[in-house]
Parts: sequence; structure tokens; C-alpha cells
Amino acid sequence: MAPSAPLTAERILEVTEDVLRRHGPAKATVVDVARELGVSHGSVYRHFRTKAALREAVTKRWLDRTTERLAQVVDGPGDASAKLRRWLSELFAAKRRKAGDDPQLFATYSVLTGELSDLVDQHIDELVGQLTVIVEEGARTGEFATGDPAVTARAVFVATALFHDPRHAGMWSREGIEEQFGEVCALLLRGLRQG
Amino acid sequence: MAPSAPLTAERILEVTEDVLRRHGPAKATVVDVARELGVSHGSVYRHFRTKAALREAVTKRWLDRTTERLAQVVDGPGDASAKLRRWLSELFAAKRRKAGDDPQLFATYSVLTGELSDLVDQHIDELVGQLTVIVEEGARTGEFATGDPAVTARAVFVATALFHDPRHAGMWSREGIEEQFGEVCALLLRGLRQG
Repeated sequence: MAPSAPLTAERILEVTEDVLRRHGPAKATVVDVARELGVSHGSVYRHFRTKAALREAVTKRWLDRTTERLAQVVDGPGDASAKLRRWLSELFAAKRRKAGDDPQLFATYSVLTGELSDLVDQHIDELVGQLTVIVEEGARTGEFATGDPAVTARAVFVATALFHDPRHAGMWSREGIEEQFGEVCALLLRGLRQG
Repeated sequence: MAPSAPLTAERILEVTEDVLRRHGPAKATVVDVARELGVSHGSVYRHFRTKAALREAVTKRWLDRTTERLAQVVDGPGDASAKLRRWLSELFAAKRRKAGDDPQLFATYSVLTGELSDLVDQHIDELVGQLTVIVEEGARTGEFATGDPAVTARAVFVATALFHDPRHAGMWSREGIEEQFGEVCALLLRGLRQG
């Protein structure tokens, strides 16, 4: 990129992701990012005050991509059961794609999320918030018979950890994992309907 | 121990666990175990042909302790719902004790189980086998309305991964974890009853 083009935060984050992919989280520096952009490292620091702030912002951007995608399911068509199933399927698919299509970047972000537990907790709260909206909808229409929707949503999220927590990424390419995912979803949906 | 006492496989495994606790999995050797027992390392090799065989045997012994404890729940009193809940609670409690009471040994065995995936798969199959017996019992008495009990049992095991998979050990001392565990169990039991 020519140095004269406007240097936006988004452009810095794009390049930071590239640098992280190539150098790994331990070695990537702000100087690498600045060099790649053809600007001084001072220019990068005007957008992100510290290296830690830059790493947090790029990780949040990565996590937010999933959140934004899933928000479309919450606002989309279908009854609460269909939405819940689709939401869990989309989450699993998004995580598998992230792990399978670009293992280098996935490993990098796994290190970063391991260090940024507050950011991850906030991300999980957002995801559980989306699930809560679906559970509330099901309770309102009489489809689900649940107690506190937020508590139920958290239980659904916890019970599907094997299909979205990066600690289990090694399982996601195993034979039979799709069937296991289907069985767990079916069991949870029956529990939600029973109330 | 005096070298003249009979050298049993069980005695070797006991001492191996002590040595692993003190030295960690990377540094513990058969020579350390033999020295601690006051015997030659040849005497140890007569029971366990290789260092790998010894490490596998001691890890299996550690895993089997949980399996044996849980078998008592399967054969114990109560209907299938009560047994299922107690089985999951006992598993969670056993894992938390292992992680919390002796973190050094838990870390050691986490490394070993990470290397011995066939052994772990076999251990998980045994645990799911126990759950299958409980689900079958519930199907027989009409308490549960499930399809294939083995498939359902696997789904219950997978859906409670956060409460028994050592990858999540960091969560087990978090505030609210007991309530989350209770919610997940309740949701799964409702699903089993609904069928």
C-alpha cells in the first residue's frame, strides 16, 4: 500500500492479521506491521496506543466476525427450535472453518485468546446473549418451557462446548463428529421443549 | 522398602506415581523408580518391558480409579434418573478432586494422557459404556424415551465435557460452576425423559 493512502484502524488490523499469520504471536511486532504498511511505527501507535491494545483489537475483530454472522440467524426466519439448531450449526461450522482453512492463523489466535481471558469472557457473554434471545422467543411462543432464559441459554452453550471451544479443535475432523453434534442438539432441543 | 520384599507390579506403579509427581513426566526415568524401590532397573523391566509400557500402565491405573468408583453408581440404588445425575456428579467431583488436591500430579497425568490418545479413547469408551447401562435401564423402565442407548449415552458424555475434560480444569474452580453443572444435567435429563 502507498504510504499516502489513508491509514485507517481497519487497514492496520488487516495487516496485523497478516503479520501474525506469518510471524506467529510471539514474534510479530508493531515495527513489522508499520513496515508492511509503509508507515512509521508512530503512525500505528496513533491508532493503537500500545502493542497490547493492537493485539486485543485484532483478536476482538476475529471473534466479532463469528458474532456478526450468528446475529443474522437470531434475526432470521424460522421458529425458535429451527433458529437454535441453525445457530449452533453455524457456530460449529464457523469454528471448523477457522481451524481447518487457516490452521496457522487459528493457532495464533488460540494463543492470543488464551492470554486475553476478559475479551473471551465478553465474547462468550455476547454469544450467550444471542442464544438468550432465541430461548426467550421460544418461551414467548410456548415452544420452549424454560425457567430463566439466560440461565438456560448458558446451559445450552456449555453443553455444546466440544463443538465450539478451540480446546477441542482436534476433535472437529474426527469421523462421526457431525452425528455426535446432531445427537447433542436433538437431546438439548428435547430438553428445552419438555421444560 | 527393603529389596527383599516381593516386588509386585502394583508396588512399582505406586512408586512410579510418586516419582512422576516429584520429577514430572519429562524427567522421571525407570532408574529413578528402581532407585526408590531399592532394586536394579532390570527388576523393574521384568514387570514392564519398556519405559513406555510403564508410563502407560501407571496412567491406566490413574484413569481406572475413576472408572471403578463410577461403576459403583451404576450398580447402586435408585432409578435411572437418579443414577444418571449421581454418575455425572461423581465424575465431576472425582475430576475436581484430582485437579485440586494434587495439581502437580494432575498436570503430569494431563501430559501423559495427551500422549496416550488410544488409552484415553478406551477409557472414554468404558465410561460411555457405564452411561449406556444407565440409559438402557431407563429405557426398560419407561423412564427414558430414547433411540439407541449407546448413541444417547455418548451425547450425554459429550454434552458434559466441560465438567470432566481436563482441558477445562481451569473452569472448575470458577464461581457459579456448580449451578451451571446443575442446569446442564437438568436440561439433559428433561431431554432423556422427553425422548
